[in-house]
Amino acid sequence: MDPTTFVLFGATGDLAKRKIYPALYNLFVDQKLPESFSLIGLGRREWTDESFQANVEQSLRMFSRREPDDSASMQKFLSAFRYSVLDIGRKEDYQKLLQLVEQREEELRISPNRLFYLSVGPEFFETIAANIGESGLGSADGWKRLVIEKPFGHDLQSARDLNQKLSKDFTEEEIFRIDHYLGKPMVQKLEILQQSNPVIHALWTNRYIANVQITANETVGVEERAGYYDHVGAVRDMFQNHMLQLLMMLTIHLPNNSSSERVRFKKKKVMEDLEPIEKQNVAANIIRAQYKAGTIQGKPVIGYTSEPGIADSSMNDTFIAARLQIDDFFWRGVPFYIRTGKRMKEKSTRIVIEFKEPLKSSQADEDSKVPNLLVFEISPNEGITLQLNTRDPHHKGEFTPINIDFHTSRDDVPEAYENLIFDALHGDPTFFAHWDEVELSWKWVQPVLEAFEENLVPLHLYAAGTYGPAESDALLAEDGYHWWFDAKPEQEIELKEGEQYVYHKNN
Amino acid sequence: MDPTTFVLFGATGDLAKRKIYPALYNLFVDQKLPESFSLIGLGRREWTDESFQANVEQSLRMFSRREPDDSASMQKFLSAFRYSVLDIGRKEDYQKLLQLVEQREEELRISPNRLFYLSVGPEFFETIAANIGESGLGSADGWKRLVIEKPFGHDLQSARDLNQKLSKDFTEEEIFRIDHYLGKPMVQKLEILQQSNPVIHALWTNRYIANVQITANETVGVEERAGYYDHVGAVRDMFQNHMLQLLMMLTIHLPNNSSSERVRFKKKKVMEDLEPIEKQNVAANIIRAQYKAGTIQGKPVIGYTSEPGIADSSMNDTFIAARLQIDDFFWRGVPFYIRTGKRMKEKSTRIVIEFKEPLKSSQADEDSKVPNLLVFEISPNEGITLQLNTRDPHHKGEFTPINIDFHTSRDDVPEAYENLIFDALHGDPTFFAHWDEVELSWKWVQPVLEAFEENLVPLHLYAAGTYGPAESDALLAEDGYHWWFDAKPEQEIELKEGEQYVYHKNN
Repeated sequence: MDPTTFVLFGATGDLAKRKIYPALYNLFVDQKLPESFSLIGLGRREWTDESFQANVEQSLRMFSRREPDDSASMQKFLSAFRYSVLDIGRKEDYQKLLQLVEQREEELRISPNRLFYLSVGPEFFETIAANIGESGLGSADGWKRLVIEKPFGHDLQSARDLNQKLSKDFTEEEIFRIDHYLGKPMVQKLEILQQSNPVIHALWTNRYIANVQITANETVGVEERAGYYDHVGAVRDMFQNHMLQLLMMLTIHLPNNSSSERVRFKKKKVMEDLEPIEKQNVAANIIRAQYKAGTIQGKPVIGYTSEPGIADSSMNDTFIAARLQIDDFFWRGVPFYIRTGKRMKEKSTRIVIEFKEPLKSSQADEDSKVPNLLVFEISPNEGITLQLNTRDPHHKGEFTPINIDFHTSRDDVPEAYENLIFDALHGDPTFFAHWDEVELSWKWVQPVLEAFEENLVPLHLYAAGTYGPAESDALLAEDGYHWWFDAKPEQEIELKEGEQYVYHKNN
Repeated sequence: MDPTTFVLFGATGDLAKRKIYPALYNLFVDQKLPESFSLIGLGRREWTDESFQANVEQSLRMFSRREPDDSASMQKFLSAFRYSVLDIGRKEDYQKLLQLVEQREEELRISPNRLFYLSVGPEFFETIAANIGESGLGSADGWKRLVIEKPFGHDLQSARDLNQKLSKDFTEEEIFRIDHYLGKPMVQKLEILQQSNPVIHALWTNRYIANVQITANETVGVEERAGYYDHVGAVRDMFQNHMLQLLMMLTIHLPNNSSSERVRFKKKKVMEDLEPIEKQNVAANIIRAQYKAGTIQGKPVIGYTSEPGIADSSMNDTFIAARLQIDDFFWRGVPFYIRTGKRMKEKSTRIVIEFKEPLKSSQADEDSKVPNLLVFEISPNEGITLQLNTRDPHHKGEFTPINIDFHTSRDDVPEAYENLIFDALHGDPTFFAHWDEVELSWKWVQPVLEAFEENLVPLHLYAAGTYGPAESDALLAEDGYHWWFDAKPEQEIELKEGEQYVYHKNN
């Protein structure tokens, strides 16, 4: 593994504290960091190396999946950390940074391989990339990589603009676009499971699969991100990136032992084969909704428009459910239902493959048969379940489902960021979003954004603590299906008659 | 459910005590006995109704899976039990029995539906059946059924003779031949699982299945049955009946919701399509072996020929491993490996479906892939496991198998005899051995018996506490396979050089 200098923009930020430092620490414990590794944290705050290291240590104590207990080992880990004050717009600060980077490279006698991790708002991507180029930070005699977080653009045009700007200083091969769903261990296993198991491979086709359901439900509301979220909504925050990435990872058909190029090629092909939805057809295939007041785990929560920073008139979507079709040999005719929302009844990301039903005879007892399901639990728990029918021969009529399942212990599972940072350090782009994927995703989503903007799609309301509006269920019911594993409501949704079916008050 | 008189021959015997009374009691608790139910126990011992009931009660305390604790309920159960002394050869005793049966039918005001359960040695089957006919016990104005235990004959001819004799007094529809493996819950589920689950149904063919392994290993030796067992061997005691029944239940392809006639028709078809082995080819496909002294679970045990009642010169088989082929559309080309033995390393009955391997690339890391397996654990534990390959994307090379599994709690599982007695009371023949199956099984086995008799097949020795002789492993290795789930030997098998490969001392 190449010696690396990890240059972290946004080192005093929340993501760094919660995700990046714990991930680096766990990689360090697992001996997955480069032998020679140097990290330079950047931020506006006037920290010293010591206060930076103390902050990192504190973040590990709060957020690492492993309790950091061996102080000698911890000191070794922290000794790689340096801090430099940087104002993103000040060119002098990049010169100072270059000096520090070179000084550390000399101290460690390592070649100038530099990974620039931009844990900052997207409005700074362009400036930082340009300054990396201009300052000479990016033109040393080693490799350079740019790791950026979402969002990558706000719509198709802004994404293209951003990509063009980054492309001035970094090639596509040097840009690592993080979609942290691609770092989740079960997501990383999707293609391996399909590819290395004949029993799954054989079933992975429209011949056997009736429909696919991809759910990413959160219980949280907008939290402190109101200003940002209200301009983004579920469609940009979750659907365009995470949900479409899950769809791609699930549906690629790979040859054996495929390279990262092959994975990207096949993902791109999925997006190309995804049937576009024209603006006027969005309402027939996509449900948008916004949460109103409700109850989650016994606690009352306020509605979206009552959240601090959200206008009463907001038409923003906090929930989206969509029906998609992939027009290729394997998936033609299989509806893919995707939904994601905030303030849902429970936190859960999962994929459910529903197989075509067994032939039912005319006998009444056949009704108790349920479809076979293959379920990938992605978070918060990780697991695979196969639901089969069986029956006690003594109760001739009644079939009972049995679940054959596998669950990993949570402690064993590396966090998404560990996987992704490891891959970025290795220069392996398999589990990052290629520009082609990002562009095609925005392209697919663009008519949806416009239909929302122009109010061609009704905005439904759903009570917080439910599974979204009734229209989400109706979308599947049109095809004779229903969402699997939604718990029965413990209490009636407190909506006035008809309320959940009308447009938002503004309409 | 018809009112029934359950006439039990061998009521003082071991099987009645260990299996039949506990099964009846558990059916009673589950309210699966007929409303009007009367049991008449028969034996040579001079028991009274009271001593009989006390014996039954004691057997429940020792052998029932449910603790019999409610004394009122227990008294109600026992009150149905009567005893009559019977010498199997004495015609007068059958007259006395007829009187008692009729008297009880009158007391309970029930129609004369009589189930004759022969829990006695096979040498008495003919006499009892004839006396039932002659005495008038079998000619009342209700139904009659004959339930018999194995063995059904000693070879093809004796089985035919026996069947002909029983047929004088009972039709095929009235004869319920118990093969208690067919009563085991997981065995009863085999066809239901295949039939009602599209994901299993789709895979149930030679297109995906590489081979099938059916194992029934015991740790016990001959126990008190030396005299009987030494004339029977593993081939008659286990293979001709239980093992071939498991093969049939696994390989039948049924339409949806099939009747018992359909099940029997399909089982017969499997036996008809089973490729016969000619006497001179037995040695190439069947391994016979006998245990010598060894160690089981840390305890030394003696060899077969040292067992009390076994001659030093015995050539009897305590182990058999066989390779079979079914020449039909679904199974052509799939080898079925069947093995069963005494004094094996561990007690276990299971079926392993090994799927064809994923295409392997030329890359070395592919070697860590293992085949997909679907495992039906039949006893002592019941469960279903699916073995899949996965891999941590960070350890590119190494695949690790994961097991997706389902296990029932042992307490919930009814005993085989509960299932079978319930079905016999209902007159449902699905899980009993039809004469056609028995005859075709003997027909297939007959050349094997003759090859053993004529010493055309070497008798190998294996140390007690192992998985049988090395030749059993070699049989699969010829085709590129191996037995799954055999534990690694904890200690070297204590055989002298070459000893396990030579014929038994007599040869």
